[in-house]
Amino acid sequence: MSPDTLKLYHSPASPNSRRVRIFLAEKGLTVPLVVIDLGKGEQHSEAYRAINPRRVVPTLVLEDGTAIGEVPAIMRYLDEAYPERSLLGATPKDKGLIAMWERRAELEGFAAVMEGVRNRVAGLKGRAIAGPHDYEQIPALVERSVLRVKNFFADLNERLGQVPFVAGERYSAADITALVTVDFAAKALELSAPAEYVALKRWYEVISNRPSAAA
Amino acid sequence: MSPDTLKLYHSPASPNSRRVRIFLAEKGLTVPLVVIDLGKGEQHSEAYRAINPRRVVPTLVLEDGTAIGEVPAIMRYLDEAYPERSLLGATPKDKGLIAMWERRAELEGFAAVMEGVRNRVAGLKGRAIAGPHDYEQIPALVERSVLRVKNFFADLNERLGQVPFVAGERYSAADITALVTVDFAAKALELSAPAEYVALKRWYEVISNRPSAAA
Repeated sequence: MSPDTLKLYHSPASPNSRRVRIFLAEKGLTVPLVVIDLGKGEQHSEAYRAINPRRVVPTLVLEDGTAIGEVPAIMRYLDEAYPERSLLGATPKDKGLIAMWERRAELEGFAAVMEGVRNRVAGLKGRAIAGPHDYEQIPALVERSVLRVKNFFADLNERLGQVPFVAGERYSAADITALVTVDFAAKALELSAPAEYVALKRWYEVISNRPSAAA
Repeated sequence: MSPDTLKLYHSPASPNSRRVRIFLAEKGLTVPLVVIDLGKGEQHSEAYRAINPRRVVPTLVLEDGTAIGEVPAIMRYLDEAYPERSLLGATPKDKGLIAMWERRAELEGFAAVMEGVRNRVAGLKGRAIAGPHDYEQIPALVERSVLRVKNFFADLNERLGQVPFVAGERYSAADITALVTVDFAAKALELSAPAEYVALKRWYEVISNRPSAAA
């Protein structure tokens, strides 16, 4: 099935959208893009909620209309439907390990940055958690998020002192999530890894110079 | 490779461990179990931290010593290494959809219960987030967690009014995570779905009567 028959609903500035765009670029796939304007609140429109009831980007829509939300689920679909240049691993062991490292990068890194942003930004008052329900911001979470992101940088630096890529010897989806986290933390929380984290810096230099990083 | 060569480090009372035990039972796999006594703090021991630096159960250890942590990553390994009675889907589309629904059950249900517990229980003071780093409890999160779990019940009931199982027409890993969430919420937060959620009740009756639910 040609990737032309898919549609990726995304937002250019959304870090979760960027995870999927980089994934597609690394696989050499070109998928038609549909922009959802988050500034105008298009994610809350009835049309988009029919596609993604959690009102978040990205969503991948298949030719038959099936809508797949959640970044790791979209990655899973893409790696199964287009197995060439796999980013989720070739053997059961690699698949398990990449799933583990990608998830750690997300839960300890990406989610921590997101929590800081959603509990801090004035425009997200009452929307501290993405999804169909409204939740008030909790200011104490902003401070905690900063701590978490700093700990994530320290752990990532330690890991990258042992192996060249997040999941081990090869570039994978785990590097994508970690890269997007580092850029997101810098942009949204003005947090960067200290200069002495040389392993992290070496890795970042390599990963962010791949053509896919521009996606 | 025989599942006898694997080892599952788990705790009988840990809901995350139960997700994997049910998964194994549904696949008809018997894996040697090693108990980590959370009450005695065995997860913080040097020996266990060498296996899982996040100091959480469960961890699956392969014959060659490779340690896979994180429930969805363990499920992924098991479904790839032992493809019979797949619980993560057969086609790329099913795999994507099951990954999506399992994740939503986890992030909106399971993680909300866990957050309530970790920010409330006196014994978890200073350990509000599992992992290698210490974080203080934030009391406001307890109240918010209760709200989130209630919203999860409402959404789950709505979903199960449309389809027989969480991910659609067939039992899958998404039902496992949702079942464990419902039981965990009742036990740890004394929260149950209201009697009028008939679709959720019907589903719960079916799922909790499968022999795997005893695992």
